[in-house]
Order: sequence, then C-alpha cells, then structure tokens
Amino acid sequence: MSTRLSSAEDYASLIDKYDTWMFDCDGVLWHGDRLIDGAVDVLRLLRNRKKSVLFVTNNATKSRKSYKGKFDQLGVEAHVDEIYGSAYAAAVYLSSVIKLPKDKKVYVIGMAGLEEELRDEGVSYLGGTDPADRTLEPFSLANFVLDESVAAVLCGLDTTINYTKLSKAFQYLTRNPGCQFLVTNEDSTYPSADGLLPGAGAVSAPLRFALGKDPVSIGKPASTMLDCIKAKVNYDPKRTIMVGDRLNTDILFGKNGGISTLLVLTGITVEDDITGPNPSSIIPDYVTQSVGDLNKAAKY
Amino acid sequence: MSTRLSSAEDYASLIDKYDTWMFDCDGVLWHGDRLIDGAVDVLRLLRNRKKSVLFVTNNATKSRKSYKGKFDQLGVEAHVDEIYGSAYAAAVYLSSVIKLPKDKKVYVIGMAGLEEELRDEGVSYLGGTDPADRTLEPFSLANFVLDESVAAVLCGLDTTINYTKLSKAFQYLTRNPGCQFLVTNEDSTYPSADGLLPGAGAVSAPLRFALGKDPVSIGKPASTMLDCIKAKVNYDPKRTIMVGDRLNTDILFGKNGGISTLLVLTGITVEDDITGPNPSSIIPDYVTQSVGDLNKAAKY
Repeated sequence: MSTRLSSAEDYASLIDKYDTWMFDCDGVLWHGDRLIDGAVDVLRLLRNRKKSVLFVTNNATKSRKSYKGKFDQLGVEAHVDEIYGSAYAAAVYLSSVIKLPKDKKVYVIGMAGLEEELRDEGVSYLGGTDPADRTLEPFSLANFVLDESVAAVLCGLDTTINYTKLSKAFQYLTRNPGCQFLVTNEDSTYPSADGLLPGAGAVSAPLRFALGKDPVSIGKPASTMLDCIKAKVNYDPKRTIMVGDRLNTDILFGKNGGISTLLVLTGITVEDDITGPNPSSIIPDYVTQSVGDLNKAAKY
Repeated sequence: MSTRLSSAEDYASLIDKYDTWMFDCDGVLWHGDRLIDGAVDVLRLLRNRKKSVLFVTNNATKSRKSYKGKFDQLGVEAHVDEIYGSAYAAAVYLSSVIKLPKDKKVYVIGMAGLEEELRDEGVSYLGGTDPADRTLEPFSLANFVLDESVAAVLCGLDTTINYTKLSKAFQYLTRNPGCQFLVTNEDSTYPSADGLLPGAGAVSAPLRFALGKDPVSIGKPASTMLDCIKAKVNYDPKRTIMVGDRLNTDILFGKNGGISTLLVLTGITVEDDITGPNPSSIIPDYVTQSVGDLNKAAKY
C-alpha cells in the first residue's frame, strides 16, 4: 500500500528521510518544453538542504551535455555529472561492461546524442545519423556490404527510423555470429509537449519481432542504469529515493535497485492505474500529485 | 508424424487424393524474382489433371491484379480470381465483415497494392502512399489534425515506414474511440531474392508495442483469409491441401482451416525445424524438399 502525501508535515518528513534524490525528467520536471509548476523551487529547496540531486532519464536522443542544455533553457539548475541518460549508460555498458574490443563496431539506430556518448566512451560505430541510412529509398540487400566487425546493434529512440536502418540492423543481428542486440530503453511511448508518441521500445520492436528475441535493455527499469550510477556516485540505498511518473520504468527501477520510490501523477500514470479496479502490481512507496507539492515543506 | 514423400508413387497418390491445391508463393514457387525449379511444370501437371489451383499469399504490397503481373513475368499461368492476397482479404474484411460505414475511413500503413484493393472494395482510406506521410522530417503533433472519421488503422508491409506514419496511426488508435487495429499479416520476415528482410509483422510491431495490444490479423494463419476464399470458391476440405514453406503461417493456416498440409523446404523452414532436437509443435501432414518433386508423378 502506498503512502499518500498531502500535508506540509508529510513532505517535510519525506525530505528529512532521504539524502539522495533521483529524478526522472519528462513527465516529472517538465512536459516537453513546459516546466511542471514548482519543479525549479523543489530542486532549489533540496539543494539548499544539502541533498544530492541526480537526474535519471531514459531519453537517449540527447547526450548528457546536450541534455544539460535543456535544463539551462528551462532555467533548471543541473550539472553534467548529475545527469544519467540511457545513451550514456549504453556507451558505458559497451566500453566497460562487455568491453567491446577496439576493432569492433556498433551499428546504431538512434540520434546524435547517442553517437556523442559512444564517441566520448571511445566506442566505434556506424549507422546513426549517417545520411546514407537516412532514406526512404528501397533497400537493396544485393548491394549491401556486411561489415563483419559489427559486434552489436544498439537501438534507441530514432525519429528517422526507416526500412533501410531496420534491414541493416537485421542483417548484422542474423549474419554476424554473436552480434549483440541492445536497446537504450524500452519505453513504449514518449511524452512530447503535445501528447504521447511512440517511444524507444516501439522503435526497436520491429527487430524484436523479426528476430523473435528480446534485447538487452540498458535504461530504467533495468539495473544497468543503476550500476552506472553506482560506479560514479556514493549513495546509501536506505536514504535514496527515485521520483518518477512511470510505474513500469521509474518505480520498478527503484524497486529493482532497493531504493524508495515516489510516484507523481503529472505524467503517464493516472489515479485509476493505482486505485482503479485493475491496479498495477507495481506499488510505489509514496504517491503525490506533482513534484511541486514538495514545496509545502519549505516553511519547515 | 509427417509423411515424408520421396517416390514417384508417393507423389502420384498425393495428386490423386486432392482436388484443390492452395499454394503459398514466396519460398514455394519462387524466391523473389527466381522461380523454384519445376514449379511451372507442377502447376501445369495439376491443371492438366483438372485440379483447382489457388494462390494464397500474405504479400500485401501488391493487389491481386499486380500480383498477376508477377506470375506473368515469371511465366507462371495464373488468373486473378485464383489469387488470394492478404491485401484483398483485408479489404473484403473491412467492406463485408465489419462493414465499415461509408462515412468512415481507414488509415493505411502500406503500399500501392493495399490501396488498390481498398479502392476496388469501396473502402475510403488515407495515408498509404500519400507523399505527405512519406517523410523523414520531424513529426509535429501540435500541427497534426486528427481526422475523426478514421475508424480503423490497417498495417501491412511498408518499406517506406517512418515515424510520421507510426505517430499518426498511434494518434488514431489512441484518440478515436473504438478505432480498430488491423494488420494484413504477421510474417516476422520477408523472403527477398537475396535473403530475409523484416516482414509485415515487424512493420506493425511498433504500434503493437506502443499500444500494448495485439491487432486483428487477416492473413495466414488467421482464418479470415480462408473465410474470404470460402465466400468465392467451392472446395471440399477433405480433398484440399495447402502447400507452404512456413510452419507458423502456411501449415498452421491449413490446420486451422481443416485442410491437409504439405511442407516444402525451399523457403523459411529447414530440416532441423522439424526433425532437430527442438522440433516445432506444428506438424504438416506431408513433407517434401521442393514443390518441383511433384513432377515425379508425371509418368503416372
């Protein structure tokens, strides 16, 4: 059973209880280009009380550096080393976890931010934003030259997804022995400022379906993302809380990682998902309407 | 246990046993633009013996009329009313089974052949080959005007699949109450002349994943295709056989429809799939290497 927060005392005691605050961004701090009311003040309040603040996002279209630009643009204080994105975590996974040999490459379905993180981690790649793959012209398998050094396919949200990219990725995954199938995250939808659109999980779904097998997923709720944070940040799980809007990513991520969880209802999850006739089996520790509610603790 | 055919007598007795022969095309009669050895002779043999010959294909990129052109080009005798494609069956399903009201439309992800069948059945549609949807430019949900008359999304193999098409389909399926989600077929892969590519099932997978629900599928192995044939052709199920290369489409289609089945090994299915350590649970009545083997019956 979740604790429903409402009074100023509730929020003050929550803030006392946790030293490390991990925030999802889209749907929690903002919607697309629109800030959630009170989000900036809450982050300031937490920083003033010497809390450690981290931003944990499945958004893999932006590198940490360019994601920092989004914070700046919206007037939200953030530092690059506080930002953990699934693009960064995927690059670290390739360079440091599976230790991709230097003569091997990754075929990328994804956007510039994913490429930037791979470059920063010294991972060679092809595909991505290459104009040759950004086409709606028919794909010719007869003219396709298989690069045998491709040892992994990494797929994130790519709004230029097309049949050539999918066909090339499919060739690598079926013809290069041992080629790994990785996805930055499996979010089914993406919350744009104007509403939901297909997410990264939808973009990789054709490969999953054609191969008949599931990829290794890096982002929330997978523990790979938390492994990546652990490697960089000292935190006490008992005094750490994940704040998010999605039960099957943010909240499950917190539960998988043994940290506490606070659900906000400003994003994907609606009241009915938790208290309706068919509630989710994923139960957050705390629930509040909006991250802005935490400002009620300011007077304490 | 399947009967393995090998002698001239085996093939002669098989031909005697069945009056109606339903053939899958890709992987059975041809690979892309290359005929399977002996396919033309087998069809001639069957016609000479007064057998009824039907072509039952999940290929939804071509209308029956243009699919007939493929037979002509390869020198295979066929008549339009012998050809049953999943594009045609989908159009009949919309016009005659769910009886889509005349003021309603279908949003199409698919190619010209699918549009042609819809036009021939009097079904209004949008999307498809519309150049406005054939784009890799960013999709703007803010500028998207939802057509409230869209009562179904129909998705087939579309080699110009892109994020705009997927996003529009997703809007109709989530915002137009009762909007139906239909797919021409769920083939995971497509056997081109040069090898496997992602199939229609892969193209619709993003919607399936984003929605978290399965579509109504029209093509093999679904019975909708056979319902469509039944409406047009008189056949005795006991004396009808389906010849195909895919266990989970062709052979399952025959089994679901109560007709006999012959598996050929010139397409997707390999020997190991039926006699290896993990054989499929879908067991054809008969197995032979290639459709050309039936020519051994010619001397009888």
